Amino acid sequence: MKKIVIIGGCAAGPKTAAKTKRVNPDNKVELYTMENMISYSACGMPYYIKGTIPSYQNLIIRTPEDFKKQGIDVFLNHKCTQILPDEKTVVFNTFKEDGSGETKRVEYDELVLCVGSKPYTPKIKNINLENIFHLKMLDDGIKIKEKMEKSKSAIILGGGYIAIEILEAFVKNGLQVTIVERNKEIMSQFDPEISAIIKDYIIKRDGKQVDFIMDDEIMEFIGTKEFEGAVTRNGRILHADMCVIAAGVVPNAELAREAGIEIGITGAIKTDNRMRTNIPHIWAAGDCTEENCLITKKPMYAALGTIANKQGRVVGINVNTEEKGVFEAFDGILGSAVTSYFDFSMSTTGLTETKAKIYAKNTNVEPISALVTKRDKAGYMPDSKSITVKLIADKRTGELLGAQAVGAGDADKRIYTVTSALKANLTVNEFLHLDLTYSPAFSSTIDPLLTAAYKLKEQIDK
Amino acid sequence: MKKIVIIGGCAAGPKTAAKTKRVNPDNKVELYTMENMISYSACGMPYYIKGTIPSYQNLIIRTPEDFKKQGIDVFLNHKCTQILPDEKTVVFNTFKEDGSGETKRVEYDELVLCVGSKPYTPKIKNINLENIFHLKMLDDGIKIKEKMEKSKSAIILGGGYIAIEILEAFVKNGLQVTIVERNKEIMSQFDPEISAIIKDYIIKRDGKQVDFIMDDEIMEFIGTKEFEGAVTRNGRILHADMCVIAAGVVPNAELAREAGIEIGITGAIKTDNRMRTNIPHIWAAGDCTEENCLITKKPMYAALGTIANKQGRVVGINVNTEEKGVFEAFDGILGSAVTSYFDFSMSTTGLTETKAKIYAKNTNVEPISALVTKRDKAGYMPDSKSITVKLIADKRTGELLGAQAVGAGDADKRIYTVTSALKANLTVNEFLHLDLTYSPAFSSTIDPLLTAAYKLKEQIDK
Repeated sequence: MKKIVIIGGCAAGPKTAAKTKRVNPDNKVELYTMENMISYSACGMPYYIKGTIPSYQNLIIRTPEDFKKQGIDVFLNHKCTQILPDEKTVVFNTFKEDGSGETKRVEYDELVLCVGSKPYTPKIKNINLENIFHLKMLDDGIKIKEKMEKSKSAIILGGGYIAIEILEAFVKNGLQVTIVERNKEIMSQFDPEISAIIKDYIIKRDGKQVDFIMDDEIMEFIGTKEFEGAVTRNGRILHADMCVIAAGVVPNAELAREAGIEIGITGAIKTDNRMRTNIPHIWAAGDCTEENCLITKKPMYAALGTIANKQGRVVGINVNTEEKGVFEAFDGILGSAVTSYFDFSMSTTGLTETKAKIYAKNTNVEPISALVTKRDKAGYMPDSKSITVKLIADKRTGELLGAQAVGAGDADKRIYTVTSALKANLTVNEFLHLDLTYSPAFSSTIDPLLTAAYKLKEQIDK
Repeated sequence: MKKIVIIGGCAAGPKTAAKTKRVNPDNKVELYTMENMISYSACGMPYYIKGTIPSYQNLIIRTPEDFKKQGIDVFLNHKCTQILPDEKTVVFNTFKEDGSGETKRVEYDELVLCVGSKPYTPKIKNINLENIFHLKMLDDGIKIKEKMEKSKSAIILGGGYIAIEILEAFVKNGLQVTIVERNKEIMSQFDPEISAIIKDYIIKRDGKQVDFIMDDEIMEFIGTKEFEGAVTRNGRILHADMCVIAAGVVPNAELAREAGIEIGITGAIKTDNRMRTNIPHIWAAGDCTEENCLITKKPMYAALGTIANKQGRVVGINVNTEEKGVFEAFDGILGSAVTSYFDFSMSTTGLTETKAKIYAKNTNVEPISALVTKRDKAGYMPDSKSITVKLIADKRTGELLGAQAVGAGDADKRIYTVTSALKANLTVNEFLHLDLTYSPAFSSTIDPLLTAAYKLKEQIDK
């Protein structure tokens, strides 16, 4: 019997708790969170704000009572303040609604840190004004929705996945929205020409409601108590009822660092492929850890629910089985991600051409790419829609390096397919005649993916 | 400059013609077909009958005039009657509407046989009655639709892909339909428990309009001039206004056989991976050829438009480049296929468990399988739907052998993904943590595919 203490209540933590209890029901499993609820889908919050999901209650996957039935003890409102590896102890501050709280020491046999990430907060004057929001915890989602329903206009700082999802919600609710993005393109997880397609789609669909301010940044927020607007580096003065900061997230790694746990070059907790940190009996999983990129074999940071769940499962197994020399490995990720703006999906895996070119600087890789715009089904099917697929490969070896697909058609299906090709280091020649399922209602006789592969082959053969 | 003669006007033939002309515009390219139109999507015909596509004209991809512009000469109504390899000549019969016709000899430098397949016609008494249809050529589709619109009831002989697609059309048009299937399950391309799920769905949705007669077969058709009904082996007497025979197809290989071209054990023309037959300067592609199964490395027969198009492309290149020692290889297929019945999709790739067990008899393979029924998106998304995924692997090596997915949710996306895993011989352990894209609107944090892989791993580790 071991006592397994897990810190973090969103994705990786609850997954670890559930898995480890299933693997060995004799263990004592305790799950601590600083929030006042537990086990909810953070990725679902934009869909609650959009109104796709009627209530935030839908996002709660399991309650403390559900865990109790499984024999897992949940502790809400417990903020971890210190990790003491030598004493195998963690210190919590239990804060109560009345402002009181006390210090609590908890001993562990195995400690799993699933302490997640927090929104990146740029240094902007007056950033603490009311009606400036981040979207991280469930409470944030609830507050953004409440304010949105009373607002006529909004500023979104950032142009990535969360920004686009919030944008859809705001457009749906009739708000005038200004996106302020530091880069030259929104969605910089894609190559510039793909990002441009995404932006063009948004402008074409909702140009009357959406303004883009690119290559600029907010220097100061206007307002005394409440947010009233913002001033940008280029001197633009913007007024709006609310602002959402969606400038990415950073790992919660301070406590770990203070405890002597090794932090990687990405700023996140470093683990091996068993999810062990450098300190015995301390493990980590989810948004607080850095990942191994399966293409470059270099560390990368990706805060995503699916990775958190997979790692939670792995660590839940390994804390039990490792002493027998049995363990499950989590070898790394491809940086796969998807989202949509109304009917327009955008999906990516592996390296973009931009990233492949950076990667090429210190390797022998010679990135080449092919871009194809084609129908996602047989062209004569009335519901066929256009998608644009980009494939990136290494001219030298022919190995695929990455793929992006966007469009009103089924883009994500294509990227799903490339993930297993990348995992297997398939070359363009091997990928070329892939026996994809075909029927006019599902794809075209030669799938856009394969057309792109043909184009890559032409370049390789040159 | 070479003269390339291509016989066959549906998928592989037109694709070969277009590709070979593009690769070397100096060549003389002639395309012959016995039909009175050319280059149409045979796979699209059920969608024309269903009414998804307003006109059969939509199915015509390119007209003889389109080919002419590309410098390709098209000859309609030319039925090939003989191949004379020693003289590098083919003989055609040109039949005209008035019944007349003449014999025509055509010389070639390279001959490409894309002569397709024909419906399998079971030996049934009175099979030539009016209103008994096959669905093979465009004309057939037009006639079936015409008759359907005047009919109240129909019998479909067979329970495979085409049968299910015709069934949907008939149900949509208000017909009472009886399916007569020789096997114990419809859709025998799937494992029995998956076929049962498909049949249950059809019964649940349209049980009032659809009857299944399983494990039985039609022995005799009733009628004098026109079809009136049928009598089955088990003594069932059925009455209906029309009948469609959808009992599969067989390759058109007679002419090739007579000319000394090698026919494989499947009854289709045997080629190497360059699409060459055993006779110099004679090539073959599409439904008339047999394929190499990438899993068993044994010949298999699959008459599918996507394969025909891919092979047409390959042969179109190779007839030009092979003499330089450059060629493209078509190494084989996985038997991937997909269709749907209304919103319910059914998709498969690689070996079913049934086929894997047959394969295991002469190999060391130990087939194991895992079945998972799960939502295709985050469960809290209002449009998430259920899918059932089955994965098959070899317990000994861990290599994946095949996958099936069915359901009202996005099943085909999952099978697409498995095709590249099978192509790369990925093992369950490698597939387990695949970095699939995730967002609540597109998948679940742990995709059904991965849940099935986890289940397989448990069996492998036992």
